[in-house]
Amino acid sequence: MAIITLTTDFGTRDHYVGAMKGVIKTIAPKADIIDVTHEIEPHHVIHASFVLMNTVRWFPEESIHVVVVDPGVGSERRVLLARFEGRLVVVPDNGVITMLHRTSRVEDIRVVENSRYFLPAISSTFHGRDIFAPVAAHLSLGVKPKDFGRATDRIETLPIQHKCDTFARRIRGAVVYVDRFGTMITNIHRRDLQGITGHEQALEVRVNDQPLGAIRGCYDDVPVGEPLAVIGSTDYLEIAVNQGRAADRFGTVGDVKVEVS
Amino acid sequence: MAIITLTTDFGTRDHYVGAMKGVIKTIAPKADIIDVTHEIEPHHVIHASFVLMNTVRWFPEESIHVVVVDPGVGSERRVLLARFEGRLVVVPDNGVITMLHRTSRVEDIRVVENSRYFLPAISSTFHGRDIFAPVAAHLSLGVKPKDFGRATDRIETLPIQHKCDTFARRIRGAVVYVDRFGTMITNIHRRDLQGITGHEQALEVRVNDQPLGAIRGCYDDVPVGEPLAVIGSTDYLEIAVNQGRAADRFGTVGDVKVEVS
Amino acid sequence: MAIITLTTDFGTRDHYVGAMKGVIKTIAPKADIIDVTHEIEPHHVIHASFVLMNTVRWFPEESIHVVVVDPGVGSERRVLLARFEGRLVVVPDNGVITMLHRTSRVEDIRVVENSRYFLPAISSTFHGRDIFAPVAAHLSLGVKPKDFGRATDRIETLPIQHKCDTFARRIRGAVVYVDRFGTMITNIHRRDLQGITGHEQALEVRVNDQPLGAIRGCYDDVPVGEPLAVIGSTDYLEIAVNQGRAADRFGTVGDVKVEVS
Repeated sequence: MAIITLTTDFGTRDHYVGAMKGVIKTIAPKADIIDVTHEIEPHHVIHASFVLMNTVRWFPEESIHVVVVDPGVGSERRVLLARFEGRLVVVPDNGVITMLHRTSRVEDIRVVENSRYFLPAISSTFHGRDIFAPVAAHLSLGVKPKDFGRATDRIETLPIQHKCDTFARRIRGAVVYVDRFGTMITNIHRRDLQGITGHEQALEVRVNDQPLGAIRGCYDDVPVGEPLAVIGSTDYLEIAVNQGRAADRFGTVGDVKVEVS
Repeated sequence: MAIITLTTDFGTRDHYVGAMKGVIKTIAPKADIIDVTHEIEPHHVIHASFVLMNTVRWFPEESIHVVVVDPGVGSERRVLLARFEGRLVVVPDNGVITMLHRTSRVEDIRVVENSRYFLPAISSTFHGRDIFAPVAAHLSLGVKPKDFGRATDRIETLPIQHKCDTFARRIRGAVVYVDRFGTMITNIHRRDLQGITGHEQALEVRVNDQPLGAIRGCYDDVPVGEPLAVIGSTDYLEIAVNQGRAADRFGTVGDVKVEVS
Repeated sequence: MAIITLTTDFGTRDHYVGAMKGVIKTIAPKADIIDVTHEIEPHHVIHASFVLMNTVRWFPEESIHVVVVDPGVGSERRVLLARFEGRLVVVPDNGVITMLHRTSRVEDIRVVENSRYFLPAISSTFHGRDIFAPVAAHLSLGVKPKDFGRATDRIETLPIQHKCDTFARRIRGAVVYVDRFGTMITNIHRRDLQGITGHEQALEVRVNDQPLGAIRGCYDDVPVGEPLAVIGSTDYLEIAVNQGRAADRFGTVGDVKVEVS
């Protein structure tokens, strides 16, 4: 059973997700459809890019990952079919693969053009149902990537500040993502930290000049309600509050400065 | 693997959806359970009717579709098992099949009465678990619709204004649904538009007397933040805002007037 | 196909649920992953305990149920693998199994310690992905509970007021859960009611001294917008409003007094 995962900004209150699942099941009855999320903030390509990067690599090879966060639907934006370390992704060419592209080995990128794998009638507002779903379904049946369209080198990318600034004994970073718990995920990687001291243990963290002390081992290392810095599950430094919301405490997320020394 | 889809107003924070899935899996271990939505607005039968109409037809024949939006649970309201163009639906008889019934060919409607396909103990507040789930599970195992109960012609219907008013060279319509993106879906069908000009291209749209210009090809045909009219993926005229929310701009949705000429 | 259900407070907007599903599918490609909920209130162990109790028993024997509501992640809190009436649960040892433990026959409880069934690298913030998901996946492949760790008798429990006060002809209870519809589920069981009269029909209910009349058969037995008491689908007395929200009407939920006589 081929796996097809779905990551969209459709929410689940409308018919959109159901229609996509129906199209997939009509073409590929044995497809194993897995919801990653339908709660990407509407039109928020960066949000989707982060989620895609952090899910694809945990799935087995040959799994198929569809992203429909597609404010340019119906315009000239292209649809891409790419292969990263054995996993296949079907996405609009609007930068949503930026983070995956920077962190995984890309093996093939194609422009999806062969309309024999689309639905017969294509709406101008719902390519998730009319193009992405049937393309993923046909892929799961064994159609080869090259049959969907020509290879391409040129793709859209997002202007994401994905690297922190590293100095001799100091790092300055920014927040790139806030999760449901209000935890702020920075662009400071575990490797960056090791780069300034050899290991991460002796370092001190400041957020907007407020000292948070050393990097902690887990949330529970500080009292409930207190902020802390921890190496998160994505291997990046996170600013959290034990059983609380860090993002509500440090002002506008885009302006938060994280320093480690 | 028979498909059983679920459309409810249960939300996902409680145990209700999990209990239904458990009952289905206990009776029919191989059933392929697919979530359409659990975010129907509580008790909002019209909302569910719209979602059902726009999902069922995308699924393959023999698929089974369960709707539990059921404010009359435990009262004398009946449970229906209907067949539309090869798909089976199991719903409360509260009008939720109105839109599907108006747009699809109905082949059979029965009253679900045979309690041998229910759970042994029936609560008065959760027929989703005690009646709808086991009925769908038994259907997926091959029990015939006629074994669930007698055929009926009389069903409850909702007073939905599903047709616009068409004049010689002018159409006046209303909004029947607002989706997650704030896009307003009207009761003006693509066919209605063709009826007044032969094709839809030269027409002008006004919403509450504000001119939106011609019907556009896609959202991206107007600047970000600007309103537009477009033929949506359900084949009805939609009022949208490029990357914004139309429903926040035109006052109370029930009072919105859409005119095309 | 072994069933693995997921109950978490991760929400669905982030990558957490997708990563867990990917890990399960990588280890156990045929696992049948079923979402119970990801909308447990963040860190709210009591909420999760109630949902777990009311879902597990509806699933077939040998099904596997994973709960990740885990504010103590990364600390010394243990992970438990327990067997209740043939169903397996994998949970943090933070009291989340309290309600299931009080209402089901426990057959085995073990401490999950054998790291050969974990991911090779364990983060300090996401044991859902690194421990719970792979343990469930290996269980579904037939690894025996005893291979995960030693048996234990000592488990954390929550201070839940799960029993009402019963007098000769009177019961005083409290609200233990509020569902999506604002319906308040009490700790007064159907059996408690039968205990004071032989059957439940002649009883009168008062909420904060407001009389609600007799226990009703269904929501529809009172006019829309009116409150009522009904034996709910969990077999406990519920305070509801027909097509409305009881929890918005009776003040702070923790202070609500329910009396039956």
